[in-house]
Amino acid sequence: MSDAPELTPVAGFRFAGIASGIKKKEGAIDLGAIVADSPVPTAAVFTRNRVKAAPVVLAAQRLHSLEARAVLVNSGNANAATGTAGMEAAEKSTALLAEALGCEPVDVVPCSTGVIGHVLPVAPFSRAMGDLVGALSPKGAGDFALSILTTDKGPKVAEHTFEVDETSYRVLAIGKGAGMVHPDMATTLAFVVTDAPVEGGPLRAVLRDATDATFNRISVDGDTSTNDAIVAMASGLAGGKPLTGPGERALLDAFTAVLGSIARQIVADGEGAQHVARIEVSGLRDSKGALQVARTVATSMLVKTAMHGKDPNWGRLLAAAGRAGVAFEPEKSQVWLGDVCIFRDGESLLSDETEEAASKVMAQPEYTIRLVLGSGEGSAHYDTCDLGHDYVTLNADYRT
Amino acid sequence: MSDAPELTPVAGFRFAGIASGIKKKEGAIDLGAIVADSPVPTAAVFTRNRVKAAPVVLAAQRLHSLEARAVLVNSGNANAATGTAGMEAAEKSTALLAEALGCEPVDVVPCSTGVIGHVLPVAPFSRAMGDLVGALSPKGAGDFALSILTTDKGPKVAEHTFEVDETSYRVLAIGKGAGMVHPDMATTLAFVVTDAPVEGGPLRAVLRDATDATFNRISVDGDTSTNDAIVAMASGLAGGKPLTGPGERALLDAFTAVLGSIARQIVADGEGAQHVARIEVSGLRDSKGALQVARTVATSMLVKTAMHGKDPNWGRLLAAAGRAGVAFEPEKSQVWLGDVCIFRDGESLLSDETEEAASKVMAQPEYTIRLVLGSGEGSAHYDTCDLGHDYVTLNADYRT
Repeated sequence: MSDAPELTPVAGFRFAGIASGIKKKEGAIDLGAIVADSPVPTAAVFTRNRVKAAPVVLAAQRLHSLEARAVLVNSGNANAATGTAGMEAAEKSTALLAEALGCEPVDVVPCSTGVIGHVLPVAPFSRAMGDLVGALSPKGAGDFALSILTTDKGPKVAEHTFEVDETSYRVLAIGKGAGMVHPDMATTLAFVVTDAPVEGGPLRAVLRDATDATFNRISVDGDTSTNDAIVAMASGLAGGKPLTGPGERALLDAFTAVLGSIARQIVADGEGAQHVARIEVSGLRDSKGALQVARTVATSMLVKTAMHGKDPNWGRLLAAAGRAGVAFEPEKSQVWLGDVCIFRDGESLLSDETEEAASKVMAQPEYTIRLVLGSGEGSAHYDTCDLGHDYVTLNADYRT
Repeated sequence: MSDAPELTPVAGFRFAGIASGIKKKEGAIDLGAIVADSPVPTAAVFTRNRVKAAPVVLAAQRLHSLEARAVLVNSGNANAATGTAGMEAAEKSTALLAEALGCEPVDVVPCSTGVIGHVLPVAPFSRAMGDLVGALSPKGAGDFALSILTTDKGPKVAEHTFEVDETSYRVLAIGKGAGMVHPDMATTLAFVVTDAPVEGGPLRAVLRDATDATFNRISVDGDTSTNDAIVAMASGLAGGKPLTGPGERALLDAFTAVLGSIARQIVADGEGAQHVARIEVSGLRDSKGALQVARTVATSMLVKTAMHGKDPNWGRLLAAAGRAGVAFEPEKSQVWLGDVCIFRDGESLLSDETEEAASKVMAQPEYTIRLVLGSGEGSAHYDTCDLGHDYVTLNADYRT
């Protein structure tokens, strides 16, 4: 098991992560909580999958108020596709934390991650709730970061500080996710806490925009989960007026920085991945079309296998771009791997020399694939990883 | 190399397939033609990829007339992403056949398949055109079927006979395709000839509808090619009035039968594929939504790896269906593998017994995955194959 990362406290929040017995492995840390001193502005974004896990449905209902006191997270069981029994289990588990904290169940936001199709057992929550609340501490964020992991290689955290009107604010993000594995993990979760003062409405807008620029631009295998959720809480304890205008934009930059870091950590932890590439698309008429092209290239199996084979294959890159449904002229396009141009103006630039240089770029753990598809202003990026034998092994061979 | 399949002649057409030296391998059959006695109604559908190969651009221009005398096909070189030089090569090669046949270049439809990014050499066409025209024969369809193959395990043909007003008509389809491989094949081609009498407009409508029901419902890896084309020619030599109304519908059924067969042969020949599954989706409000769900399930990497592992994983199936953007209630859904129900009304039906039965279904080379997602009238299907190590080996490891 990984060690708990050391994280600086964020005023107004206590954290805990303990072993409750939800995971089969003896002593595995699988139950976590983030608790604010009192109900604070809270916003969330959830999976767009039509099949939503019980905790996602319940959390979305409760966050209509844009306020919460606590987040309760378990790993090892996604409580997804579990019908009425799953909803009851989500309600009961949050009621137990609410009782221990002396707040209302509606003030507790549930999140679950792990295997699909098994109703969440409530007994581990009953047994462990005293320990969980007892463990709550401003210094507990590292333990919390461990409690939400499933197949991740290690915890995923990001911190950021920004200043508005000479007041310094902290943002801490904690996430998990590495694909949907063995046999069905349900998948990414992230939590952002800040001591900045911001009301629920602007907090929700900031979270949505930051998610759109980060988590919505990564792909491990193109599949989305039944449980994906990002929850943001703002205590306001660092002082100052509620952030609006330039202050809100500073908060957005901070959220984008920490969620971008977590998203990138998730792709790098992609199942069997050895390389992360940022697909940068530019020169199109608008950024919407550029994003569509970047997403299509990032999810192409032929592109991802070429990445695995370190093959500077501009044919696959252009063919994937071409099926995105966005108009461009291949004759006026360029393809770059890092700083090596391999295709320009309808012509391959691959020689022994450029091929070797491009393969060197592709041997790096992280690099950029750049498609310049014209002279328009529209640009976008998407992060992806390679597809190799380990992906197949993890997702097909686990039964044998 | 595979043997040429024996195919019954179709009145009004001669075929040939010979070795011209476009493929590097000595004596490899790589140049083919289908020639009608005179210009006949001809229609085609082409790739929707924005990056279109030179022969696709030229063929589409020429078939505005809905009439052609001949199809000229080469394998081993896709003439894609080759700019002006590629267009010139496509024009010159077809002019050579037109000269030999004594018709106009615009009466010749070019198709190419093979490696992307190299201008098609014209010299092999000059050298071999006499031999090609000399080899033309009503019995040459088997040789033609070999001449269009690239990484296919063998030729793909389908025949069908139907009757209208006591006249019997024949339809012969010949296709190729097995993904985009090593390093970039550009990919599926199919040709349909019939002795039925039908004008260009109805022929085009029939071809479009038949393609939509067959070739547009298969997926090996979700990528589409720069060269995909299906060309249909109708000699009318079997006699009778031009088919309209019920006769046109009978022609559509025949086209759907032969193109459905070729499409299925392509999926079965999918790179490294051991299993073909038909994804059947029903119970949705309309068939458009059902097709969207079927396509999303068919292209899901997690579904395709589960197929490879023979894992009756309803979680992955429902999660893939859920991200298709179509509303349905998992609580009222069913998941079937062959005749084994593994999920019903929000509940897993997997027991030791059903799991064993379902795994047996998934061990077959062909089987059906059925998702009943409600009680609506909308249904659709999509054919797909499994994703295993051989796919990765073919697409990532060929350089090492």
